[in-house]
Amino acid sequence: MTTDTVPKEVVVAGSGFTVGGMAKGAAMLAPNMATMLAVCTTDAAVDATTLRNALHEAVALSFNAITVDGATSTNDTVLVLASGRGDAPSRDALTAALTEACRSLAEQMVADAEGATKVAHVTVRGAESDEAAHVAARKVADSMLVQCSLFGEDPYWGRIVSELGSAGTPFDIDRVAVAYGGTVVCAAGTAVPHDEAAVAAHMACRHVQIDCDLGLGRGQAVVLGTDLGYGYIDENRTTS
Amino acid sequence: MTTDTVPKEVVVAGSGFTVGGMAKGAAMLAPNMATMLAVCTTDAAVDATTLRNALHEAVALSFNAITVDGATSTNDTVLVLASGRGDAPSRDALTAALTEACRSLAEQMVADAEGATKVAHVTVRGAESDEAAHVAARKVADSMLVQCSLFGEDPYWGRIVSELGSAGTPFDIDRVAVAYGGTVVCAAGTAVPHDEAAVAAHMACRHVQIDCDLGLGRGQAVVLGTDLGYGYIDENRTTS
Repeated sequence: MTTDTVPKEVVVAGSGFTVGGMAKGAAMLAPNMATMLAVCTTDAAVDATTLRNALHEAVALSFNAITVDGATSTNDTVLVLASGRGDAPSRDALTAALTEACRSLAEQMVADAEGATKVAHVTVRGAESDEAAHVAARKVADSMLVQCSLFGEDPYWGRIVSELGSAGTPFDIDRVAVAYGGTVVCAAGTAVPHDEAAVAAHMACRHVQIDCDLGLGRGQAVVLGTDLGYGYIDENRTTS
Repeated sequence: MTTDTVPKEVVVAGSGFTVGGMAKGAAMLAPNMATMLAVCTTDAAVDATTLRNALHEAVALSFNAITVDGATSTNDTVLVLASGRGDAPSRDALTAALTEACRSLAEQMVADAEGATKVAHVTVRGAESDEAAHVAARKVADSMLVQCSLFGEDPYWGRIVSELGSAGTPFDIDRVAVAYGGTVVCAAGTAVPHDEAAVAAHMACRHVQIDCDLGLGRGQAVVLGTDLGYGYIDENRTTS
């Protein structure tokens, strides 16, 4: 078994300060700050409270928005260390740089996920809240049926709509739209004529964009996931 | 693709009345009365309210306690029809017969699940409530890592304990015990010496019993699930 096959590193240049990061993690990966390990460093001159708050915001939009198998580990860890040798950034500038660093590391983890051949970028828009959008996007990304269809490069949007409808968040089938790689395949809950060759070409890519619009409000979220193919089973059927 | 490969039928003889049933369903199967279809019949002489209440109780302990892939369908249906030609049973007798019929149909569905090679009987005992036990048992049965380990016949109880601990229900690692086929492999959260050959022999069976004791209370529940192997992916990678 081979896992965690590539180094995952990032550097983000702020104005007068820099954020660096490194991470490990390839399965049992649905972080809720539980086997994921990431360390960020910065030379920004910041106090501990500001640094902690900035990290919390960054983690919510990065590590806590990825899922490989829906299996939350027991010991995810993200650390940030600040030397104070650089400038003192604004809180927003620090948070933005940390978020960019964490997002990059999170995406590198998903791209190296055990047995995966695809990275799915699931965006839900038009939800009643950002929280509802996150729950719905995670339901789609965690769906074994959606994951299998990504492995098979089969644009079966009915599975996506089913997951959105059973996510437990507000849903109106008559308002739902789904697009693969920007090509709308479903609008108002119904199939629409579309460029099938364009969709097929997009599904063959390593990165697949799934955009869902619930048509209910302004909430939105992005969750990164993977496909489910023979590789995941080969990695996880035994521990040896 | 072949799915729903065998008829699923049952007859339960009550005292003075009989309950019959038939069902279909093989994937997108995590019924919460959503593609599953089951019809029960009885000659019991009962009024509609009593029949409805008995069916609700029966469904909670049968169809709503199975999961193949965690994907709740949009249109599960269970019907019960009563002719009134038989005796008038007590409510308890009717509920018991209907529950036995529904449990049998539910187990037949899991046994015919798309691509599955195993039926997992996940029991959680010692929970603070029956509801908490059900949530924890479903978390274990729905875990892709646990499902892969069943396919690989690998008694990796650490995965089971991780799922119990991240189920969101009360949990104390120092009190947890796990057994495969009645052989305890983990007690008080720690590995215990055990008959490895007995466990290996049990894991090779089609029906695998996973018993978890949380050591917290008297709540208990059983959820039936399956393994995750190449067959599920082959059935679901494309719709054609």
